Amino acid sequence: MLEKTTRVNFLYDFYQMLLTPKQRSYMSLYYLDDYSLGEIAEEYDVSRQAVYDNIRRTEAMLEEYESKLLLFQKFQERTKVIEQLKAAASEQTELLSIIDTLEELE
Amino acid sequence: MLEKTTRVNFLYDFYQMLLTPKQRSYMSLYYLDDYSLGEIAEEYDVSRQAVYDNIRRTEAMLEEYESKLLLFQKFQERTKVIEQLKAAASEQTELLSIIDTLEELE
Repeated sequence: MLEKTTRVNFLYDFYQMLLTPKQRSYMSLYYLDDYSLGEIAEEYDVSRQAVYDNIRRTEAMLEEYESKLLLFQKFQERTKVIEQLKAAASEQTELLSIIDTLEELE
Repeated sequence: MLEKTTRVNFLYDFYQMLLTPKQRSYMSLYYLDDYSLGEIAEEYDVSRQAVYDNIRRTEAMLEEYESKLLLFQKFQERTKVIEQLKAAASEQTELLSIIDTLEELE
């Protein structure tokens, strides 16, 4: 479950701009602010089931975007290579500072 | 015009998976295979105007995706930093080989 939450958080981070404002609200309350489905339902004056369905559909959309654009997968691949670069450039301060710049772009 | 074509080609490269098969066909005939609007219209048995409208709408969609996800902008930023890294790592073969791996991930 924790692993799934981490993945959804990453996917949300990459693709949130492609969601509707309502989808973003539900997702960020549920995944970032740790609200329960019941609490979100109360906040928006809708049924718990409606919130649940919306969040499940949004998760499926995030996975569909990932299957098409692979932003999370590529991010993981680049992060791994950047770690290798850091190790290989150990104590070369100029190189390390450029690698930091690259990392901040992620 | 050449500059616009280059930009559309890049955006198409990044976001084509978010387009419909028909949008992809028109775009790739027009921008990659250099067909004219008339030739595409003939190929698909539709009016030249229909092809034109479809392509203009698709270009607008690509720009909208870019305004939300910034994949092309980030690609350009990373490419610049990778060039700096290469220059700073000159003649260090282990480092250069890792940088190549990073570049291939783009």
